[in-house]
Amino acid sequence: MTSYVINNNKLTRMKEWHVPASIVSKRTVNPIRDVVYNMKVTPNPNKEYISLALGDPTYYGNFKIHENCIDAMITQLKSYNANGYVPAIGVESARIALAKKFSTKEAPLTPEDILLTSGASDALSLAINVLCNEGQNILLPRPGFSLYQTLSESKGIECRYYNLLPDRNWEIDLDHLSSLIDDKTACLLINNPSNPCGSNFTRQHLESILYLCENYKLPVICDEIYEDMVYGDSIFYPLANLTKTVPILKISGLAKRYLIPGWRVGWIFIYDHNNILNEVRSGLAALANLILGANSLVQRAIPDIITNTPQSFHDETNKSLEENAKLSANVLGKIPGLHIIVPQGAMYMMVGINVEEFKDIKNDIEFNEKLVQEESVLCLPGKIFHYPNYVRIVTTAPTAKLNEAYERIKEFCVRHHV
Amino acid sequence: MTSYVINNNKLTRMKEWHVPASIVSKRTVNPIRDVVYNMKVTPNPNKEYISLALGDPTYYGNFKIHENCIDAMITQLKSYNANGYVPAIGVESARIALAKKFSTKEAPLTPEDILLTSGASDALSLAINVLCNEGQNILLPRPGFSLYQTLSESKGIECRYYNLLPDRNWEIDLDHLSSLIDDKTACLLINNPSNPCGSNFTRQHLESILYLCENYKLPVICDEIYEDMVYGDSIFYPLANLTKTVPILKISGLAKRYLIPGWRVGWIFIYDHNNILNEVRSGLAALANLILGANSLVQRAIPDIITNTPQSFHDETNKSLEENAKLSANVLGKIPGLHIIVPQGAMYMMVGINVEEFKDIKNDIEFNEKLVQEESVLCLPGKIFHYPNYVRIVTTAPTAKLNEAYERIKEFCVRHHV
Ligand SMILES: Cc1ncc(COP(=O)(O)O)c(C=O)c1O
Ligand SMILES: Cc1ncc(COP(=O)(O)O)c(C=O)c1O
Repeated sequence: MTSYVINNNKLTRMKEWHVPASIVSKRTVNPIRDVVYNMKVTPNPNKEYISLALGDPTYYGNFKIHENCIDAMITQLKSYNANGYVPAIGVESARIALAKKFSTKEAPLTPEDILLTSGASDALSLAINVLCNEGQNILLPRPGFSLYQTLSESKGIECRYYNLLPDRNWEIDLDHLSSLIDDKTACLLINNPSNPCGSNFTRQHLESILYLCENYKLPVICDEIYEDMVYGDSIFYPLANLTKTVPILKISGLAKRYLIPGWRVGWIFIYDHNNILNEVRSGLAALANLILGANSLVQRAIPDIITNTPQSFHDETNKSLEENAKLSANVLGKIPGLHIIVPQGAMYMMVGINVEEFKDIKNDIEFNEKLVQEESVLCLPGKIFHYPNYVRIVTTAPTAKLNEAYERIKEFCVRHHV
Repeated sequence: MTSYVINNNKLTRMKEWHVPASIVSKRTVNPIRDVVYNMKVTPNPNKEYISLALGDPTYYGNFKIHENCIDAMITQLKSYNANGYVPAIGVESARIALAKKFSTKEAPLTPEDILLTSGASDALSLAINVLCNEGQNILLPRPGFSLYQTLSESKGIECRYYNLLPDRNWEIDLDHLSSLIDDKTACLLINNPSNPCGSNFTRQHLESILYLCENYKLPVICDEIYEDMVYGDSIFYPLANLTKTVPILKISGLAKRYLIPGWRVGWIFIYDHNNILNEVRSGLAALANLILGANSLVQRAIPDIITNTPQSFHDETNKSLEENAKLSANVLGKIPGLHIIVPQGAMYMMVGINVEEFKDIKNDIEFNEKLVQEESVLCLPGKIFHYPNYVRIVTTAPTAKLNEAYERIKEFCVRHHV
């Protein structure tokens, strides 16, 4: 490959440049990039392009940041006092405010149990990195958020996917989950409410999951970035409130509830009633030094943001999400060839494609590509979430856009139906 | 250690919780934490505490952000249009503005050559991660910034330290550097201007380094976070301007020149005239997906920040740095038992301790601890930079603080001198 001269292992001269990329970078895959960016079709030039693909509620401008968050940032900017380095685990005032807000009787939190990170993505990266070794395996939901795979495979950790059951509101198939566990299983990752399912687990189901973890002594990474973003009769239960024994790293952040995903603020809460995670706690503190977390202005604005943004803001967000979810379920549920699972939270909905009912669509990838090509509507194929023959729809677009997109999806399905 | 039941490799039940931290987290060390935070001494309660330890120019409030940067952020905040996700490699407008500002005839840059990151720390992490495999080695400066070690060891990369020569203004000992290279050497990391040395390489020295890289076909990670922060007769030469053949990943960011280290914005510039880094370029784009870079407000403010902050701001910063460096060199250079190397850039100075001239101080760690205990002055011991019997002084404190600190260091040295 290269030609160089080696004396006693010492390199004396190389003839040609050869700079390969690392193994780690090569095993860092992004399924979204692979599927969407490599899509060979172009949208129909006669129809306005509508994306229902991006998990970014700010995209269309209808879901807007509360002005309290803007004011909180301006206060920090004008203080001339929030531009310096902050501790690797995060500014203390923010950790104090978070501990105060999120502590419960069942699951108390101190500022020392909290680590601020550069988005929930960084929080997930740290949590996976501290719990799993290369060569071990991690249990991930199927369908599930693709970053779990990207992070795990990048670190050389084997992904094992446990099934979620569409017929049971996307509950975990616990028997299937159990069957995946072996002596190389480092932890279980659950995501509730779920991207891409829009589901929200019942208290009973969460207790069953915890029972299983207790049995196998499996620590849990619990991604609750959509916490409290539920509607209808659904109630959100933080996992940590339901156990005194299973150690939990809870992942969350400001991105979704405060409609500021670009600000990159996430956190890990360490729940560990019985000092099982002492080593993990130090490990997290060590790993936090590698890139030094989130922007200092936002970190210092956290107490103001989480204390002074009125509850009505969250209520209105949830109300809009509920209306959009209802609209989506009503319309899409009646389209021939599709079947839906009514969402209960977050901002997503999975739509099943009954491929046998279509004349010329053999799977979700083809559904997606033809929908772009003919109707200029972009969804994400289920393949990205390891769940073929579904597409994920983000339900945050303004009503008019949703209606227009669904109208086109309907015409599309009718046209291609057997 | 643990007791569990395994059938055909399947775990059926575990009796006890055992959640160890990962190997990666255990090999992630922070020498600053190890040395400073574990320091057992307490400051002298009768003397005001003065830290000259933190590489944060904003610490004392005398080095202040320019109001243009504040306004640029407020504009973004009020736009309601900068809160969403941005591309993993960074917003295009910022990459365009950076390419325009930093492109030179010798080393042209396009927006595609630029990756925005969460601080220069993240840029370094990505660059090291894309060029080096576990089991390979990386060449690092001694003395050098400790994050290089932290990042490399965390990723399982062996650190080999090449000597900098204090008697030659901290130039690289190129013979020593060559002697470290073998077939497992992935790249050379250089830092110019230097933390902790405050040195700035001559054009001639940079050309000698490039000659060596060309000979051994070694790609370079060039950390120029202190670019243009030089004074006196010193001129800063960007490494990339001096070669048409050696591929370079240049690391820099807003932290130091704009006095906003907490904002966490860095970047990688890819210099690659001959398409040697094609794989590395894709690898960097893949790795950028793991945590999604810097805060969106700051990213979108970059064009405004780098275009409209007046040059006079940087000139004034450099003038203050020069005055502080002169003051420091003048005073510390005359203290018995110490010797200095006059700095030419950045905001640091290395002070040598002639241990044989002290009756009861046997090394830099002891010097540092006794100085805290007796005089309430904190420096960083050279050990942190792999350079014993020196201490690093950050020269950004206000003049009065510097004078007071140096006065105490003088009394301290006189008292302990043989
Ligand atoms: C389930 C889930 N977890 C984590 C994240 C990442 O959050 P952040 O933007 O704070 O990194 C997302 C973003 O879409 C998500 O859907
Ligand atoms: C030489 C050097 N490189 C990189 C960094 C990190 O910069 P950032 O704060 O942008 O991560 C520092 C910070 O002190 C530094 O001294």
